[in-house]
Amino acid sequence: MNIGFIGLGNLGLPIAENILKKRAQLFVYNRTQSKAQPLADKGALVCNNVRELSERCDVVFSIVSDDTALDDITLGKNGIVENLKAGGVHVSISTILPATATRLTAKHKERNSHYLAAPVMGRPEAARAEKLNFLVAGEPPAIAIVKPLLKDAGGAAVWEFGNDAAAANVAKLCTNFLIVSAIEGMAEGINLAKKSGVDPHTWMNMVTQTLFAAPVYINYGNILLKETFQPAGFALKLGLKDVNLVMEQSRKVAAQMPIGELMRERLSACVANGMGDYDWTAVALTLK
Amino acid sequence: MNIGFIGLGNLGLPIAENILKKRAQLFVYNRTQSKAQPLADKGALVCNNVRELSERCDVVFSIVSDDTALDDITLGKNGIVENLKAGGVHVSISTILPATATRLTAKHKERNSHYLAAPVMGRPEAARAEKLNFLVAGEPPAIAIVKPLLKDAGGAAVWEFGNDAAAANVAKLCTNFLIVSAIEGMAEGINLAKKSGVDPHTWMNMVTQTLFAAPVYINYGNILLKETFQPAGFALKLGLKDVNLVMEQSRKVAAQMPIGELMRERLSACVANGMGDYDWTAVALTLK
Repeated sequence: MNIGFIGLGNLGLPIAENILKKRAQLFVYNRTQSKAQPLADKGALVCNNVRELSERCDVVFSIVSDDTALDDITLGKNGIVENLKAGGVHVSISTILPATATRLTAKHKERNSHYLAAPVMGRPEAARAEKLNFLVAGEPPAIAIVKPLLKDAGGAAVWEFGNDAAAANVAKLCTNFLIVSAIEGMAEGINLAKKSGVDPHTWMNMVTQTLFAAPVYINYGNILLKETFQPAGFALKLGLKDVNLVMEQSRKVAAQMPIGELMRERLSACVANGMGDYDWTAVALTLK
Repeated sequence: MNIGFIGLGNLGLPIAENILKKRAQLFVYNRTQSKAQPLADKGALVCNNVRELSERCDVVFSIVSDDTALDDITLGKNGIVENLKAGGVHVSISTILPATATRLTAKHKERNSHYLAAPVMGRPEAARAEKLNFLVAGEPPAIAIVKPLLKDAGGAAVWEFGNDAAAANVAKLCTNFLIVSAIEGMAEGINLAKKSGVDPHTWMNMVTQTLFAAPVYINYGNILLKETFQPAGFALKLGLKDVNLVMEQSRKVAAQMPIGELMRERLSACVANGMGDYDWTAVALTLK
């Protein structure tokens, strides 16, 4: 089985490295070709374009920046759909709209290949530590093929959301929304504690050892308390991109999200003020 | 050392029972005297009024509904301050404004007695399981006297916030705010998942085993998924009371709290619609 990997960004690179380590062989492609060099040095086979990679592989992973970039590599004469062999599987890790997953699933089906949604939870350091969580949905035979590969890719766990690929993307959007609302909650609580003359470390120390003893509160709480907003673990502009997807989905299904709307406004204002490259916890800086 | 306990409501009663169990003797008082009967049956000494209880005790616990009720039992000719002996300690468990703690500390000081803030995290079932968390602040000698008693009262842990009694109340308000923002976050995420055709149990199962593996998300998530909004574990009208205190404090110290303001509005609308006696997770019912 030949495996391919498209998109060697901050998160794509360590995930691809994990696969290469376990499988010894990996076909890779990145638009900016220099980013493939670290993998080439470790023995990965660098392809010249998406078409070449798709022709040579049975399973193609992709992790690109947004819905448009995913369409670009997937559709058209030189895209994955047109060039992947029958029975091949396209595993899409990107955080995108559920409707995009549905649309691309149909396109692959027309060519007798498979689209699998496999959005991921975890920052680059979690990828390097092989502690990622993959959310997966799509046709069961494709899941059966890909599940062991997701573990090779650094997945500590693979969470299944059924036959409909879009479901994994819905779950991912819900999760990112829950994270951003937790960040804002902590930021407001820390601000209130500080301005009231209470050491916010003492307060956060208590909550993260009791009711909120969870990674999101421990890790993001730490960033908020230390105010280490640069370099970004997850850039605020990407956070806004995800919240925009959340709100687009919420409009589509007519689901009210007052905190979602609030966070869309707050993150938009941050980006407008030049904070797009800060970590998304930097939304705290705008609380007076 | 004689110990007294004022306020035998849903939470006060099991806390008082814990102390009685460990200490064999306890003086108790409740405005509605029938509520003292279960404790009297177990050997507690029922006092006729606050004055009598204060005269007979070295340490007086109080847990009453709000700042006004606390003022009522603490101040005036028949209150705790006037009747507690010099060196006595008033341990106030209620969730109140930090400024009230500061004011009552001064009143006690005038009579050479001590006021200790000891707000508590935990529902009645946590009290019965002796898994409460007490937040404590005040003069160190008073803390030294009271700390073992808080463990007797069912405190699995006692978290110290320094010499200034108000600090424990600030930390408690910050914590209740963090809880209500987590509830709203989950409610919005569950609503989005449902309306998008994704089983919210599958989603919550994943998040509570990964990034949000914490009691608040597991316990309140469970209520939200089962929609068991009655009987209330913590009544929505009490949640609104606490959020009002949060917002009063935020105004006092000029700390912006956009989610706080949103939750004040949302909970107010629920109470106006007759949902005050539902569990505070029932705010989810108003999401269209």
